[in-house]
Amino acid sequence: MDCIFCKIIEGSIPSKKVFENERILAFYDIQPSAPQHVLIIPKKHIPTMNDVQTEDLALIGEIHQAAQQIARDLGIAEAGYRLINNCGKDSGQVVFHIHYHLLGGEKLGALVGSASVHND
Amino acid sequence: MDCIFCKIIEGSIPSKKVFENERILAFYDIQPSAPQHVLIIPKKHIPTMNDVQTEDLALIGEIHQAAQQIARDLGIAEAGYRLINNCGKDSGQVVFHIHYHLLGGEKLGALVGSASVHND
Repeated sequence: MDCIFCKIIEGSIPSKKVFENERILAFYDIQPSAPQHVLIIPKKHIPTMNDVQTEDLALIGEIHQAAQQIARDLGIAEAGYRLINNCGKDSGQVVFHIHYHLLGGEKLGALVGSASVHND
Repeated sequence: MDCIFCKIIEGSIPSKKVFENERILAFYDIQPSAPQHVLIIPKKHIPTMNDVQTEDLALIGEIHQAAQQIARDLGIAEAGYRLINNCGKDSGQVVFHIHYHLLGGEKLGALVGSASVHND
């Protein structure tokens, strides 16, 4: 098992936890792209969004419920935040254990794509 | 009802549809940030991620299942794609009807945040 996120879940790699329940863990990104940058992951090892099965959809919903709570806990719910899932090579996904980035704490930049012509 | 996405759903504003079922609609973004840029929305009017209720979580799951299918249909599932939800002012959310951006068709840029120091 070489998955760095599975090692974070089991505790053999440390992380600064923000949220945890039986199925979900959230922790600060060690290379933040914004003043608040949290990674939200399922404890179940699912490599990418392409690998999410019908029986995992409730877990995807729960991740979003966790994101709502984390945003409230971080005090950024009202100002706003961005949730991002990268799937596969073109997206820059590096760790192949599905994860959502929660970014906030500042006015975020435009969407990327190469041709970032608008902001929503 | 001044919601532009509700008008797209009812058909009074045209869109180039990519996917539709009873609960979800997806259509091309008219100001694309990448070669493939689709917006996936629930037909239920939910203003932001903060407004998603427990009873809406299954719908969030379904949106992701639609995203998987759309990525396959567009031929970008294997190369990869990015899913983004913007919530509130700091994220640049413009239309207050919850929507996921599906971006792909090229090597996407780094995450934004202002300090885009890494790519995943």
